Formats: sequence, structure tokens, C-alpha cells
Amino acid sequence: MLQAAPTGIRPSPEAVAAVINALAADFGARLVTSHAVREQHSNTLTWVPSQPPDAVVFPETEEEVVAVVKLCAAHRVPVIPFGTGTSFEGHVNAPLGGISIDTSLMKRVVAVHAEDLSCTVEPGVTRKELNDFLRDQGLFFPIDPGADASIGGMAATRASGTNAVRYGTMKDNVLSLTVVTPEGEVVKTASRAKKSSAGYDLTRLFVGSEGTLGVITSITLKLHGIPEAVSAGICPFPTVHAACDATILTIQTGIPVARIELLDQTMVRAVNLHSKLGLPESPLLLVEFHGTDASVREQAERFDEIARDLGGGPFIWETKAEDRSRLWQARHDAYWATLALRPGTRPVPTDVCVPISRLADCVEETRADIAEAGLIAPIVGHVGDGNFHVQPLVNTDDPAEIEVLEAFLQRLVMRALAMGGTCTGEHGVGQKKMHYLEAEHGAPALDLMARIKRAIDPLNIMNPGKIVDV
Amino acid sequence: MLQAAPTGIRPSPEAVAAVINALAADFGARLVTSHAVREQHSNTLTWVPSQPPDAVVFPETEEEVVAVVKLCAAHRVPVIPFGTGTSFEGHVNAPLGGISIDTSLMKRVVAVHAEDLSCTVEPGVTRKELNDFLRDQGLFFPIDPGADASIGGMAATRASGTNAVRYGTMKDNVLSLTVVTPEGEVVKTASRAKKSSAGYDLTRLFVGSEGTLGVITSITLKLHGIPEAVSAGICPFPTVHAACDATILTIQTGIPVARIELLDQTMVRAVNLHSKLGLPESPLLLVEFHGTDASVREQAERFDEIARDLGGGPFIWETKAEDRSRLWQARHDAYWATLALRPGTRPVPTDVCVPISRLADCVEETRADIAEAGLIAPIVGHVGDGNFHVQPLVNTDDPAEIEVLEAFLQRLVMRALAMGGTCTGEHGVGQKKMHYLEAEHGAPALDLMARIKRAIDPLNIMNPGKIVDV
Repeated sequence: MLQAAPTGIRPSPEAVAAVINALAADFGARLVTSHAVREQHSNTLTWVPSQPPDAVVFPETEEEVVAVVKLCAAHRVPVIPFGTGTSFEGHVNAPLGGISIDTSLMKRVVAVHAEDLSCTVEPGVTRKELNDFLRDQGLFFPIDPGADASIGGMAATRASGTNAVRYGTMKDNVLSLTVVTPEGEVVKTASRAKKSSAGYDLTRLFVGSEGTLGVITSITLKLHGIPEAVSAGICPFPTVHAACDATILTIQTGIPVARIELLDQTMVRAVNLHSKLGLPESPLLLVEFHGTDASVREQAERFDEIARDLGGGPFIWETKAEDRSRLWQARHDAYWATLALRPGTRPVPTDVCVPISRLADCVEETRADIAEAGLIAPIVGHVGDGNFHVQPLVNTDDPAEIEVLEAFLQRLVMRALAMGGTCTGEHGVGQKKMHYLEAEHGAPALDLMARIKRAIDPLNIMNPGKIVDV
Repeated sequence: MLQAAPTGIRPSPEAVAAVINALAADFGARLVTSHAVREQHSNTLTWVPSQPPDAVVFPETEEEVVAVVKLCAAHRVPVIPFGTGTSFEGHVNAPLGGISIDTSLMKRVVAVHAEDLSCTVEPGVTRKELNDFLRDQGLFFPIDPGADASIGGMAATRASGTNAVRYGTMKDNVLSLTVVTPEGEVVKTASRAKKSSAGYDLTRLFVGSEGTLGVITSITLKLHGIPEAVSAGICPFPTVHAACDATILTIQTGIPVARIELLDQTMVRAVNLHSKLGLPESPLLLVEFHGTDASVREQAERFDEIARDLGGGPFIWETKAEDRSRLWQARHDAYWATLALRPGTRPVPTDVCVPISRLADCVEETRADIAEAGLIAPIVGHVGDGNFHVQPLVNTDDPAEIEVLEAFLQRLVMRALAMGGTCTGEHGVGQKKMHYLEAEHGAPALDLMARIKRAIDPLNIMNPGKIVDV
């Protein structure tokens, strides 16, 4: 079975003990070494075998993060930043042991700048907590990866999700970060200005670096006004190709669609079983428009025309909040819904992303591959971005099934790369996709990444064994 | 007078001669050492004193760029990538001499992927050439820095301009780059997929790196459908504050304004003198909306309401292309128009960017500063981004005027930084803003930039003496 080889050297038991003793003295009950908590910090939603850290510390301030990192650096003990643990690819495993820095106590909304449509938050604030906080001011933060992830984790993994087609990903919505470097320096990556040409883009370097370059201690985000009106609905299509073609035309004609999600037939069946929605069991698009009353109506009508021209429809849409919520809840429950298709197994969610012109081919070929491999693996896609998720349901205790699964995942990635795509659109690299990076980027690009890692983290203590081998 | 100190060591005359001789043998007439051409490649639109390269080479292919870079690296001779030379801050000066790589012969549009709304071009294609090429396909590339800059140069300097408020900057519109590294390796920074979480964001690292990390040899860009309908117009306001407040409200209420430009009274006078537009001599917003016939009408009407509530208006808008063109031509001619205010001088354009909530204060304080300093310096702003340009008209042969100018520029930047802004929103660092980066970013962030530079360009041959001292 493919498992990332740990890079670097595991620190001596004496070094680890020295760090844990010092932390226990300073943090008291906020330093935890129990097996259950360590396990929970290496492996939550992922099927990747757990490699627990030696201890988990819960800092409350940036100064405390600095102290932990400096202590770990002095003893060459790894540091693994931790948000809510909802990543899928082994991002928070500790192959060399070390200290997991759980940011869940760093929950302040530091500032909301309503006129600037921006806010600054600590990393432990989750996206739902932030949106609850902002609602009264008529503002919202659109990035929605499904899970109620922490903003720090979302920045670290370059998260995106259903709204990305209109609002972009974390790369587009982080204005600035404060980061504690592997040597314990506090770096502010940018000002609060909406744009800047003042030097290298450190913000974008840390967004998506998965904790391998530093610990994020504050995030300044772009916000948006809550739209006056929203319309959302469901549109069936005869084929995945027709649904993808409708998506392409919608975007090409400049309809500013806010969400456009593909569910394949298998996923529709799962959602029906779980949420009793009675959806037609054909490929579906779930579509949402944001704007004024007049403009969301216009957008919905134009989308309906496009869908009908391609043999789809009818597009049944609603503007009432409760009807829309039911719809999107069903979409967000997809992860759990799939379990109904094969009880007793676990979902192994993964994602790839291709140029949208190749999406239909990629999904159809993947569906054929799933059938041939004898897998049950529903598909759901952020189709406006060419990004889709496959969720094989696997008995992960059965080595034979794991073998079939691993071979399928490999073919899935190679298919996406052959179509000009990427091995992951939004889930990130973690441990499980490290070995695809050379195929995707080529050796010279990977060498640049390794140089950057060594330049910023010369001791290789920051989340070692993720993204690049150094 | 403040002038960037050249970092690094000037190569020996023998090393330079060896490189020039080898290039002459390979490139023939495409290797030029004449004084006029060397001068033209270090100093075009900028007032910064010229530091010409030793020679200029005009490669036609990526392979030729690789050959030039490898040759220069072997002899430790600097390489200065060159687009159209429309930068303002001394980006293409050669303080240590070296070889200017002029990309103007690399003009192929490599591919247009209409369904993906993307294209791949060589660096010498200019933005107007690209838009001429795309028009028949109903597509356009929105980034518009005013000058007909090359796409390679725009990527290298993280250009933006009038459309950025809706379409973002080069950072948001470059999907992928091909770059020749300082060691002559060819790196592709990303796939063509619309988003990816597959490792460090090399694309955004090279966007805005101003030729200090490599030579860009191809750029894959996001494109947009040409909007069905466009409305644009002019709206006077009693004060700069009222104009800025109208901008903030427009954005906050979610009106997807495509362009929103502030001209202060002095700039309106200049434009009137130059373009005979007869505009009212008060602060003006030039505003443009993109969408359908119905939606641009709705947007214009809503903007008009906002303007009237703030004592502005009437908002006089047009949907006819020729009327709009006249308007935007006047805006784009602002650089030249200002000359009419003080004939015989030269404009010294500079820019800063602040959070939009501070923009009115920053512009008003800057206007008072201009008056006190006895300068003539019109202001024009990409006000939706909090970014504005000041264009002092200066007799650059008079040391006393230069002294007044330098002191003013310093106060301008420090004012923007004190308001949470940046020393440059879109013009870049070049030589003239290097000494502000520590004040803006702090020493630890600047140290990270220097580490990155050293890691990728260990010989410091790539556009040395720009952005960071190493």
C-alpha cells in the first residue's frame, strides 16, 4: 500500500520529553498527551492510517504559538498545525512525532472593517462561526468547503467549495496572513489594501502550504455583502455531457452563477435515500444565483433556456430561504449520504480538477472505470471550476479492496493530469498525493518547491513529510 | 537623491565580452549593443536615471531564452527581462550591466481554449494585440493598465488597472506560467485547471516578482466573454469624500461595477485641456457596468440613486460604444493630458493603495500636501480598489525640484502605510520603492523574500538590485 515515507529524522525521546515537560509547565491542562486526543489529532475524517503526534498543545495567543515553535525548533521537534481535522489526505499526521498545535482556542474575531468588506480573525474561528458573527452587519464570507472548517485550516489548505465559481478560493479571499515562521519570527504577509505590487506574494505562498512553512495566527479575509436576493434550483440532464455543456455555456455567456454543482446518478440515488428529496435519478445540476430580485430572476430564466436547448430541464427554482436550505443541506450531506449505498464501509473522498472543456470526458471515463473496477463511488462536482469529487465506499480493513482502491485512485489522477488537470483541486496534498506532484509539475518545479521549503524551514520541523520531500 | 544602491558585483569586462561574443555568434542582428537601443531598454517612460545593459538580445523561442540564461549564468552576467518598458520605477535598469532579454519577438498566441475561457500566449504579445486576436471569438482579456504593455511584463509586475475592481489583477488572471529559472531550467508553474491545491503556489510567486526569479516564456490567462451590454458614464461629486463614499456603497450593495475611476479637480482640468470634453471641474467618477441590457440599466440606475443620496450627480451614462470609447480614451490619455498643466516638465507617476475606507482621507491629505509643497500633481484613482495615482509635473533637471519631489513621494508612501496601505498598488517596486519595503512588511517578511530570492537565484544574476537586496 502506498504510504508517504516519513522524511527527516525522528527526534530523540529525550528531546521530545524535554519539549513536553517544558510545555506542561507553561500550558498546564492545555498540554495533552492522552492517546485518544493524540489519535484524534492525526486522523479524523481520513482513512489514511494514523500517525499520532507526541502531544497536543492548545495555545490561546500568538505569543504562545511563538513560544511553542521556538521551543520545538530548539529541540528539533516537529510542529503540526491543526485546525478542525477535516482534511482528507493525511495532512495532520505526525510521521516523525512532534507537537500538534491545536488552534481551536484562538477564536477571536479581531476586527470587522465593513466599509472595506474585510475582517481579521484568529485561525480557530470556523466559517460558520464567522458567518453567524457577520450576519447582523449584512456581510458574509463565501468560501464553503462543506465541513465547518477553521479559517486557519482553510487558508493553510487553499480550500474552496461550492461558491468558488463566483467568489474564488481561499487564494482569492485572503488579503493577508500573520504567520509564525519555523524559527519563531512573526511575519505579516501583506497590508489590508485590496491589492499590492510591493514584492513577492508571501500571502499566496502561505495559502495552501499546509502548515509546512509556518503556523497561521491571523487571517485577514475579503467579505461580501449578503445578496439582496438568491434563487436556487435543480435541473436534470439526460447525460453528464449535457450538464457540463450547460455549465460551460452559462459561464461563457457571462451569467454570474454563484454555485453550480453536478451530481451523477449514483450520488442522486444516495441523496434520495438519505434526504428523501425524491430527485429524478439522472445527472443533476444544483444551481444558485445571487443578485437583486430582478437579476436573479433574469439569471434563472437565462439558465433555463440554456438547459432546455441542451435537452435538460425543467429548471425548478426557488427564492425562499427554507427551500434553498433544504437543497443545499442535501448537497452538504452527500458525504454521509453515500454511506447508505453500502452500509458498513467508509467513504474515501478524493478530488481532481481539469479544464472545464474536459470535465464531461473525465467524469464519464471515471464512471466507466468505477464500473469496471466494481467500486461503488458516487461523484459530485464543482462543475463550474472543472473540479469533481469521487467517493468510493470501501471496506478499509480488507487489503484486497484497498488494492483495488489505490489502483483506481492512481488512474483517476493520471487521467486528470493527461487532460491538463491537477491531482487535487481543493483537498490538498497531505501525505497521500505527494507522489503525484512530480508527474503533475515536473522535477524542476518540484525542486523549486523544495528550495523554498528549505529556505524557510531549514530544520524541516514544520509539518514534515507533507507536500515536498526535503 | 535617493537611488537604489546596486547589489552584487558587476561582472568583469572579460565575462561580459565573452557573453556578448557568444550571443553575437548565435543571434546575429538580434544581438544589439548600440547606445540608443541600450538606453531605450533601461529607461523609457520613467524619470529614474538610466543604467543601460551591456547588450540587448531578442530571442524568438523559449529554447533561445534558455540558451541566453545558461550562458549568462556560466559567466555570472546579469539578465534583465524586458517587455515594453512601460514601467515607472526603474524595473528594467541594469545597475550591474548585463544582458536585457527583449521578448518582443515572442508574439505567438499559442492556444485559445474558448470553452475553458483561457488562452496561452508568449510574453511579447501586448494586451491590445491579444484583445484584437480574441474579439472574433467573443472573448476578451480585461486587465488594462493603460499602456499597451506586454502580457509577460504585466505578469512580471502584477499589473492591474481600471477593470481590476471587477476582474481582479494579474494575480487573479494568470492560471499558469512557463518560466526559465536563473539556472536555465524550464518550469511550468501549474496546470490549466481553474484551481488547484497541489503544492506551493509557484504561479503567484512569479507573478509580481519583476524578473528577479526568472524569465517568463509563456502565460496562460483567464479570459472572459465580451459582455452583451455595457453602460458607462460620468458622475460629478461635491467632494472627494462624497465620491469615495459612493464607491464604497456601490460595492457594499453588491453592484458588480466593472470600472470606477476617480479624477480629482486638477485632473479634470488637465483632461479638459487635452481632450476638450468640457467636463464639470469637480471630483468625478467615471463608471462602467457590464452585463445584459437589463442588468446594466439596473446597475446604472442604482448607482445614480446612490450618487444623488450623497449630493452627487447627475450620472450621465451611455451605452453606445463610440461615446464610451471617447470617455475612456480621455481617461487613458491622463498621463499625457497632465503635461498641458505645466508644459516643458515631465510627469512622475507613482501610486499607493489603501483600504477603501481610508481612501478619501488619503487623497484629501495628499491634495493638501501637494498644495503646501507647491507641486502641480493631478490625481486619478482606481477608487474601487483604494488605489490612486499621483502625477507630479517636475522639471527633473532642477535639483531643487527633485528634492521637493522626493520628500513628497516619501510622505505619500508613509501616509499610505500609516493608513494600513501599501507603497504600491500596481506600479511595482523596481528600484525606487525598494527602500520602503521594510517599513511596509517588516524585517522578518523581507528576510523571507530574500531567502526565496537566494534559494531560486543563488548567483543573483536575475534582474539584480530590484525588490530585495540579497
